[in-house]
Amino acid sequence: MTTDSKADKGASLNRRDWLKGGLKAGGALGASLALPSVATASDPDPLITEIQDWNRYLGDGVDARPYGSPSQFESDVVRRDVSWLTADSKSSINFTPLHELDGIITPSGLCFERHHGGIAEIDPADHRLMINGLVDTPLVFTLQDLLRFPRENHVYFLECAANTGMEWRGAQLNGCQFTHGMVHNVMYTGIPLKYLLEEAGLKGNAKWLLPEGADPSHMTRSIPMEKAMDDCLVAFKMNGEALRPEQGYPMRLVVPGWEGNMWIKWLRRIEVGDKPWHQREETSKYTDLMADGLARRFTWTMDVKSVITNPSPQAPITHGKGRTVLTGLAWSGQGKIKRVDVSIDGGRNWTTARLDEPSFSKSVHRFYHDFDWDGREMFLQSRAIDEFGQVQPTKDALRVARGVNSIYHNNGIQTWQVKNDGSAENVEIS
Amino acid sequence: MTTDSKADKGASLNRRDWLKGGLKAGGALGASLALPSVATASDPDPLITEIQDWNRYLGDGVDARPYGSPSQFESDVVRRDVSWLTADSKSSINFTPLHELDGIITPSGLCFERHHGGIAEIDPADHRLMINGLVDTPLVFTLQDLLRFPRENHVYFLECAANTGMEWRGAQLNGCQFTHGMVHNVMYTGIPLKYLLEEAGLKGNAKWLLPEGADPSHMTRSIPMEKAMDDCLVAFKMNGEALRPEQGYPMRLVVPGWEGNMWIKWLRRIEVGDKPWHQREETSKYTDLMADGLARRFTWTMDVKSVITNPSPQAPITHGKGRTVLTGLAWSGQGKIKRVDVSIDGGRNWTTARLDEPSFSKSVHRFYHDFDWDGREMFLQSRAIDEFGQVQPTKDALRVARGVNSIYHNNGIQTWQVKNDGSAENVEIS
Repeated sequence: MTTDSKADKGASLNRRDWLKGGLKAGGALGASLALPSVATASDPDPLITEIQDWNRYLGDGVDARPYGSPSQFESDVVRRDVSWLTADSKSSINFTPLHELDGIITPSGLCFERHHGGIAEIDPADHRLMINGLVDTPLVFTLQDLLRFPRENHVYFLECAANTGMEWRGAQLNGCQFTHGMVHNVMYTGIPLKYLLEEAGLKGNAKWLLPEGADPSHMTRSIPMEKAMDDCLVAFKMNGEALRPEQGYPMRLVVPGWEGNMWIKWLRRIEVGDKPWHQREETSKYTDLMADGLARRFTWTMDVKSVITNPSPQAPITHGKGRTVLTGLAWSGQGKIKRVDVSIDGGRNWTTARLDEPSFSKSVHRFYHDFDWDGREMFLQSRAIDEFGQVQPTKDALRVARGVNSIYHNNGIQTWQVKNDGSAENVEIS
Repeated sequence: MTTDSKADKGASLNRRDWLKGGLKAGGALGASLALPSVATASDPDPLITEIQDWNRYLGDGVDARPYGSPSQFESDVVRRDVSWLTADSKSSINFTPLHELDGIITPSGLCFERHHGGIAEIDPADHRLMINGLVDTPLVFTLQDLLRFPRENHVYFLECAANTGMEWRGAQLNGCQFTHGMVHNVMYTGIPLKYLLEEAGLKGNAKWLLPEGADPSHMTRSIPMEKAMDDCLVAFKMNGEALRPEQGYPMRLVVPGWEGNMWIKWLRRIEVGDKPWHQREETSKYTDLMADGLARRFTWTMDVKSVITNPSPQAPITHGKGRTVLTGLAWSGQGKIKRVDVSIDGGRNWTTARLDEPSFSKSVHRFYHDFDWDGREMFLQSRAIDEFGQVQPTKDALRVARGVNSIYHNNGIQTWQVKNDGSAENVEIS
């Protein structure tokens, strides 16, 4: 690892990608690609010449953990709440630690939470789902009834409309967990909602649905019939197992690509009507107040968006210059992500990131940019483009279009300043 | 729901699949497709006319569970061990509750365990991975070093070679958790092993690897270089988050499609050599004793296999006759599953199941068969076929080929007898 020829050989697989990205790496490539912290086996390293406890003493057996949990050394990898921001933790939010995760699956225990009346702890034996209103036959389903309908599995992101909302007025929160952590990505098992609606029989003037939660907030949102018949699910499993209580156990609505508050948790009733209901959560909340005082309403679809999760303020570069992996997430409520560009100079030059598999419609995508850091200050940005050519805008462009009264639907390009010591900060550049 | 025309309408979406499957449903289709347990909204149902506690009282807030866990009503959904079968729980096995899961992702907390010296509880700061032997430069990597190499994400099944091993002598264990629960399916984030080997530089006679675990059993297996350079990973994340301690935290080898004991956990060293080492776990264990007294060795690839998870002995039919969802898992160590056939009459008649997405190479696949149960006894079987045309054999065919001394690599067709009360048993039919 100490000679140029060695480093040349080791890096040969990846240099093509680094070069074609168009980044001008500083210094001689051979030298700068070396991994300074990789030791040769002959280097003194007491940590590997000592016999560690876990090499010597038998550990716990297979009866110790019927349901497993993370290592004690991962105790910082948790959802973090901002209850100070809200009147009560029972109607508040917490955030997924995006900077600690990789791939595209969000572990169920780390999926962010947003409740309006706390977590309903429902006994599934006592839970029912009613479909009523403009149907031929109002129906009441138990969970066991649902299990008799054909099931499907799909991976979808769920993003709170308020995700990144604090950033409308400029860089506010120092870490992607807080700026972008109200998104998670889960494989759901559920019944296409259209099967249940067809079971009840829709009347000719059935155009809208009002799903309702069993929690004390009785969360409701109006959903147009076209969406319900297209890809909505009544889900009962996430990432293979039963929904978690905080995610709507025993059943929730899945509304792919649309804002998270429409994915009614603890789903107990779906009313079928001929027009929207104009409930609280689609009038006083979850609307976008524009500069002229008018409000955008029913802004359901989450726009194309991305964020660099590493490096980032909570995940600085600690290894010094040389080979560096930049990674992040991109998603679009319209469909698949086609391309992600990244910049290390605040948007002056862009290079195409490596978009990893798998790629699912209305799911987050994982991107990587493997590059050679010269140790100098960087301004990191990512810009996602979806399969329909929608391009993630700058925050400035969003403000021109919508003013600065908005809370919701901020999909602007995020900037992290990485200093030459590897630390990172949330900044805004024009 | 009480008239034939109603049932006709509700079932219209699915009838095509049921009919083309070739199953002879008993009785008039219209009547038999009704869901007897679905109530109309006008039926008396005290459970939905009462106001339940979770409708009235605010639940826990977002600060209650920094890392979430399943509902209290899912406390039976756990790994179950059979420490009574082994000398000690520290060198034993437990099983994934396949009958409680759906989709293709196994939750990390439910991935079965097989340890040879208990769970090593490793502090990643004190862990190293050494590559030595027939290399140009022996190297020692920290976890942080690994994070500087290009990463990939892949979904792979891991199956213990002994999965279904008790069934060689006939139906033994009453539930798919115990007969087939030594398989799990996870999305891994890791570094292609070839990048690390190329970093060290392979000598011309480097043909085999010996990965070694940091646990006190010092688990080792010989792996041919072709496999290492093809698709092996050094993984550090599973299902988005850090590996769980019992799955090799902070790093494990991923050997796609090959038997689980080769996926060395707590990976601390990879020796490069010119021939296999003939270690304990590839001579006295994990070899297949044939009828003539000779043993098959290096039987790495897990053969094409499937199992019906529901209905099954631990998951009987409780809803009576009518619409029923049969589901299960299929996998092949060679690649993708192309087709799964199911039989309800012990293999006399077969119909093609619905193979759900996503379909990944060397991953489990989820299949469904939506049918109309006439309430009579069934003998359920599934038969998987992979993309190379490999067909899952009967247990009898396996016994003819290999005798009955074997423990490992039983991929035979499993039979569940479902009685007319919906209960199910593990049986064998010829």
